[in-house]
Amino acid sequence: MEKTSVLIIGKYAEIECNIQRYESHFVVTQVNNLEEIGQIRKAERVKIKAIAFKGHSRFDLRIIKQFPSLVIIANFGVGYDTISVLDAKKLGVVVTYTPDVLSDDVADLALALLFGVSRQLSLGLDWIKSGLWPIRGEMPLNKRVSGSTCGIVGLGRIGFEIAKRLESFKVKIHYFSRKKKNVSKDWTYYDNPVDLAKSVETLFVSIIGGPVTHGFISTEVLKALGPKGILVNISRGSTIDEKALLNALEKKRIFGAGLDVFENEPNINPRFLQLGNVFMQPHQGSSTRETRQAMGDLQFNNILHYLGSGKALTLVPEMQ
Amino acid sequence: MEKTSVLIIGKYAEIECNIQRYESHFVVTQVNNLEEIGQIRKAERVKIKAIAFKGHSRFDLRIIKQFPSLVIIANFGVGYDTISVLDAKKLGVVVTYTPDVLSDDVADLALALLFGVSRQLSLGLDWIKSGLWPIRGEMPLNKRVSGSTCGIVGLGRIGFEIAKRLESFKVKIHYFSRKKKNVSKDWTYYDNPVDLAKSVETLFVSIIGGPVTHGFISTEVLKALGPKGILVNISRGSTIDEKALLNALEKKRIFGAGLDVFENEPNINPRFLQLGNVFMQPHQGSSTRETRQAMGDLQFNNILHYLGSGKALTLVPEMQ
Repeated sequence: MEKTSVLIIGKYAEIECNIQRYESHFVVTQVNNLEEIGQIRKAERVKIKAIAFKGHSRFDLRIIKQFPSLVIIANFGVGYDTISVLDAKKLGVVVTYTPDVLSDDVADLALALLFGVSRQLSLGLDWIKSGLWPIRGEMPLNKRVSGSTCGIVGLGRIGFEIAKRLESFKVKIHYFSRKKKNVSKDWTYYDNPVDLAKSVETLFVSIIGGPVTHGFISTEVLKALGPKGILVNISRGSTIDEKALLNALEKKRIFGAGLDVFENEPNINPRFLQLGNVFMQPHQGSSTRETRQAMGDLQFNNILHYLGSGKALTLVPEMQ
Repeated sequence: MEKTSVLIIGKYAEIECNIQRYESHFVVTQVNNLEEIGQIRKAERVKIKAIAFKGHSRFDLRIIKQFPSLVIIANFGVGYDTISVLDAKKLGVVVTYTPDVLSDDVADLALALLFGVSRQLSLGLDWIKSGLWPIRGEMPLNKRVSGSTCGIVGLGRIGFEIAKRLESFKVKIHYFSRKKKNVSKDWTYYDNPVDLAKSVETLFVSIIGGPVTHGFISTEVLKALGPKGILVNISRGSTIDEKALLNALEKKRIFGAGLDVFENEPNINPRFLQLGNVFMQPHQGSSTRETRQAMGDLQFNNILHYLGSGKALTLVPEMQ
């Protein structure tokens, strides 16, 4: 029997994608990104039944239609906002993602970003490297994290993990989500992000990306957060009105921001590089070896199970 | 009635030392450090009953004897290893410190240092600043914090706070202290630091400084920690055999270190600056505005209460 054809799209670290394992089950084609799919010969392309996708380019109807045998797109990551899920659904293509396995890492990084801003870790590193310590003495005092009041915008898996960690720092938890959640009665619910931002010292953004949440953290939310407030974003660059954020940071209308995600990453707005009140990471929320391996395993197993039994392990919510 | 004379030694940020408050109760003399006490006129010096001390120079018998009316040395900070407490005691001088108020901040920074090393925050910052992100893509994968196994050397106030925080990251807690403590049964006790180091991925050092613990984290402990192990030190530079640590870091016999404290700080060994596997801060464990104000308040209140009623609030353990 002929083996099924699978296309792997994206730049994977070795630990993220076990090619030998794919090849032991499937006929494998590989390209670095969506732009390169034009290089695949038509005879191959029309046979491809599954795509293992890693990337942040738009995976839309035009692309899906180029694969007439396609039945599954298995996304590497929990954010699948660039995949046109509804178009896929209409064409009978299921979309899977890799939830849960990365929540701990992303929540960990959210805390690290808060420390980066509050405790001025970047200034501390420079204080030593530039030799300022013996000359100017102690670095300037900074801001306590423990005992502060934090707000979580979006209490999904990752937001919940952020809140659980913050609790151990004696932080008072406030949150916004579409509905009140069945969580600790010590956590305070808000039905809108502006009132939440008014009540907290730090605002964590952990909502999904995509058109629905575009610019959700608006000028108004940033204004409510105020000149002592810290914004931490580990979701998607698109969830924040980035122009409003840059203005707020430049004019010190908020205290600072911890950012792992940006619009147009990796080509981020150069205005960010001029700021002293940001602590930035290059979208590395899930990028530990342990988690990336688990994500790669789940991506592979979604394809293996769906092609074998018609049952995927982790369908995106729109498919469930 | 003549006001009591108080000497304030050290470089304090404004928020750390409320001079107006001192002056409303006492006759106040101020010097920047112990070396400057020679500048105080004898007529003043012999009247000084209380010293508010901030610094890391040796405060020994020779210095104490220069103040014949002295009854209290109120240290700013929880570490008082440079003060000759037993000499003070013999001369009837009590020594106080500022415990508890800084435990949260120091524990917070300990966690931040772990993230700094494990999640390679310094590399992440550089990845963005140097423009590598668009050119080389994702930064190299790093190491998960959540779910790891951590060891605490010294389960005092700060060690305990570190452990409580780590628990929320689903970390398995192991610890060494002189005696087994009455803590969660999920925490594993070791009666020596070598066996502890063998069993964990990260080792936090939170023991007191001074001669007794000098070089406590020895070559043998570092060897037991091994090439995948991370060392975090928020105690004193002296608690680690620093030459052994530098050798281990240079030869990658341990994975990395997060360090807030050093021997001879602020003039730290320049070999540290050549390392890619350290995440360093300039002894800023307690340096938040909130905590430094609380430390200054406690230092002042120790003096006020002791001179008023003969009862200090927070005597160092040797005085209790």
